[in-house]
Amino acid sequence: MFQINDNYLKLPGSYLFSTIGKKVNAFQAANPDKDIIRLGIGDVTQPLAPAIIEALHRAVDEMGNADTFRGYAPDLGYEFLRNAIAEQDYQKRGCGIAPDEIFVSDGAKSDSGNIQEIFSDGCRIAVCDPVYPVYVDSNAMAGRTGTYDADKEMWSRVIYMPCTAENDFVPEFPKETPDLIYLCLPNNPTGTTLPKEKLQEWVDYANRIGAVIIYDAAYEAYISENNVAHSIYECSGAETCAIEIRSFSKNAGFTGLRLGFTVVPKALKCGEVSLNALWARRHGTKFNGAPYIVQRAGEAVYSEAGRAQLKEQIAYYMRNAKVIKDGLKDAGYTVFGGVNAPYIWLKTPEGMSSWDFFDHLLENANVVGTPGSGFGPSGEGYFRLTAFGNYENTVRALERIKAL
Amino acid sequence: MFQINDNYLKLPGSYLFSTIGKKVNAFQAANPDKDIIRLGIGDVTQPLAPAIIEALHRAVDEMGNADTFRGYAPDLGYEFLRNAIAEQDYQKRGCGIAPDEIFVSDGAKSDSGNIQEIFSDGCRIAVCDPVYPVYVDSNAMAGRTGTYDADKEMWSRVIYMPCTAENDFVPEFPKETPDLIYLCLPNNPTGTTLPKEKLQEWVDYANRIGAVIIYDAAYEAYISENNVAHSIYECSGAETCAIEIRSFSKNAGFTGLRLGFTVVPKALKCGEVSLNALWARRHGTKFNGAPYIVQRAGEAVYSEAGRAQLKEQIAYYMRNAKVIKDGLKDAGYTVFGGVNAPYIWLKTPEGMSSWDFFDHLLENANVVGTPGSGFGPSGEGYFRLTAFGNYENTVRALERIKAL
Repeated sequence: MFQINDNYLKLPGSYLFSTIGKKVNAFQAANPDKDIIRLGIGDVTQPLAPAIIEALHRAVDEMGNADTFRGYAPDLGYEFLRNAIAEQDYQKRGCGIAPDEIFVSDGAKSDSGNIQEIFSDGCRIAVCDPVYPVYVDSNAMAGRTGTYDADKEMWSRVIYMPCTAENDFVPEFPKETPDLIYLCLPNNPTGTTLPKEKLQEWVDYANRIGAVIIYDAAYEAYISENNVAHSIYECSGAETCAIEIRSFSKNAGFTGLRLGFTVVPKALKCGEVSLNALWARRHGTKFNGAPYIVQRAGEAVYSEAGRAQLKEQIAYYMRNAKVIKDGLKDAGYTVFGGVNAPYIWLKTPEGMSSWDFFDHLLENANVVGTPGSGFGPSGEGYFRLTAFGNYENTVRALERIKAL
Repeated sequence: MFQINDNYLKLPGSYLFSTIGKKVNAFQAANPDKDIIRLGIGDVTQPLAPAIIEALHRAVDEMGNADTFRGYAPDLGYEFLRNAIAEQDYQKRGCGIAPDEIFVSDGAKSDSGNIQEIFSDGCRIAVCDPVYPVYVDSNAMAGRTGTYDADKEMWSRVIYMPCTAENDFVPEFPKETPDLIYLCLPNNPTGTTLPKEKLQEWVDYANRIGAVIIYDAAYEAYISENNVAHSIYECSGAETCAIEIRSFSKNAGFTGLRLGFTVVPKALKCGEVSLNALWARRHGTKFNGAPYIVQRAGEAVYSEAGRAQLKEQIAYYMRNAKVIKDGLKDAGYTVFGGVNAPYIWLKTPEGMSSWDFFDHLLENANVVGTPGSGFGPSGEGYFRLTAFGNYENTVRALERIKAL
C-alpha cells in the first residue's frame, strides 16, 4: 500500500493567501453590494507596459510562422535574456555574474520553493520572522523543519530571527548555527531593508560558518536609498556563499505572465561539488523552460523604452506607498517600510491581533490587507498593506481607514 | 557547514536530451557545412495554429489594458480552461472528472517530475523499461531509488518492467509489489500502447495492491485505433488509484508555450487523506500558475476552429510517422510504433549498440535520433525517431537512411 509524504500533514492550515482569498470571497458573497478594495496579496494592478506588449505581439507572430516558430527553450533560458540580465542587473553594478550562472524560470515563487531540493535533508534553515511563508513551508514539505508547535506557531528545527520594531527589523546572527539562511531584502512583509554594510556582515558570517544565503531580491526595483544593495553580489565574497532569486513580477508587472530567475555562481561549492551544476540538473530534469514569448517580454524589460516605462510604473506604485504611509500616520498608526519597498507594515491599534485587525478592516472599511502573523510569530500584532492597488482605490481605501 | 542533497551525485551522466544536444552541437561545430536533420528530441516544428495565435494576441491586448489586465491566476488554473478540459477531455468520453480535480500547470514535464513529492520516501516505484527518463530521475533525486549499478544501468529499488519486442511491449505485473506505477501510454519511446482491456487489468491490479498509477497521457491525441483508451478514467475504478498527466505540447504544439495539467480525483485517498488536497497544497505553495495568455491559448485548443486546425496538424505529423515507418521497413529495419503515437521505435541493425547507432546515423546520414538505451536498460539495441520534423526534412532524412 502506498504511503503519502506525511510532512504535508504537519503543515498548519492552508497557504496564507488561499486563506485570505476564501475569507474575502465569503465576505463578498454575504455582502454583494460592498465595494472591496484589495491591498492584501502583493499583486500588481497596472497593465503591462507598451514595450512589453509590443514584444509579446511580435513573439506571438513568430510562433505562428514556420520559419520563426520556437519549440523547447534552452534549459537555462534563452541567451538573449540571460545576456541582458547579466549585463544590466549585474555587470552594470560591478557584479561579475556571467550568463551561465543565471537560470531563467517561471517565477521567484517556484524557485524559492524548489531551491531547497539541492540541499541535504539535514540542513537547518534560518529565516527572518516575519517573512514570506514559502521558505518555511517548502522546507516543511521536505521534512527539514522538525515538529510544529501550534501554540507558538513555530517549527522545532527552524531558526527564527525576529525582526520587530524593537530591533529596527534588522535580524541578528542566530545563537544556533544555520546551514541555509533565507534573506528577503527589501523585506516582504515589513518593507524594510539593510544598509549595504550590514548585508556585507551577513555575507562574511555565512562564509565564516559555511552557510548558504538564499537571497530573495524580488523587490530590488523599489530601492530608493543609495546605501542599499540591489544585489547581494555587490558584497565581496557573496559568490562563494549566496544564491540570488529575482522576479519580474514586481518590477515589471509579470504576476500573471510568470518569469523570474535564479543566480547560482560557479564559485559556490560544497567541497568539490558545484551548486551551479546541481541546480542545472534539477532545472533540466524537472522543468522545461519559461515560454519563449514571455522570455521575449522579459528582454523588453531591459530595452530603453521598457526601462523608461517601468520607471514610471514603479513611481506610480511608490506614490501609493506614500499615500498609505502618510494616511496611516495621520490616522495615528505606527508605520514602517514603504521607502525602499512597496509594502507598508503597521502596528495594529490597541494590541489587536493581526487576524482581528484583518476582520475589522474587511468588515468596517471593506479593505483587504494581510495579517502580520501569517508571515511568522513575530508578525503578530502587525499588518501589511501593499502599494500595488491603483491610485484612486488606494486613496479611497485610506479615506475609509482614516474614517474608522 | 551546509550539505547538499547527495542523491544528485548518484545520478548517472546528465539528462539524456542535454547529452544529445551537446553531441549534436559538437558535430555541427566540427562540420559546419553539414545539414543536420533532427528527429531526436520530441520537439514539434509546425507553427501554432491560427486559432491559438488569435487567442494569444487577444489575451496580450487584455494584459495591456488596465480594465482587463490579469495578475496572479487562481491556484488550480482559470475556470474557463478547467471547464473546457473537464467537458471535452473527460465528460465527452464518459469520465466523471470535475473541474476541481484538474490542476493546470506549466507542462507535463514539471508535473511528472514533481508529483512524486506528495508520496512517502519509502514508496517503491515501478516503471516500464524503456521509458521517459524523468520518472526515474526525479525519484532518484528524492532518494527513493536506492543505489545505481552503472554496469546494469539500473537502480536497486526501482522495479523495472521490461517492454521489448519479445513481449510485444506490454508490461507484465511485476513480481515485487510497487507503490507507484508509472505508465506512459501511448508510450514514449516505443510508440506502442495497450488495448483498453489490458489497461483495465492494470487499474484492477493497482486497486487490489493499493498502488497509485501515475498515468502520463501526453500522446493521447495520436491514438488512431478504437480499442485504445484516451484517458485512464475510461477504465472503471481508476478514480481510486490513478493520477493522469496531460500535455498541450504534442496535441497543440505548445513545447515552447508551456502548458499541461494533472488530474487528481477526489476519490483517490490514502486512508482519510485526499491526494487532491495534498497536490493542491503543493501547487499553492511552490507554483504560481501558468501565464494567463497561455491559458487562453489552451482554451483555444478546445474551440471549434482550434480542434479542426489541430486535427490537421496531427495528421501532418502522422503522415511523417508513416514516411519513417515505411521507409525504415523498405530499408530492412524491424520497426514498431507510429500508429497510435508520433514515435517510431526500431531495432538497431547487426546488433549495434544504441549509442553506436546514434553516432553512425549522425555521422553518415546527419540525422539525429535518440538512443534507446537512454530510456532504460531494455532500450539497448533500439533507437527512437520522431515524427515531429517537417515533412520535407523527414522525407530527406529517410532517403539518407535508405542510402546508408
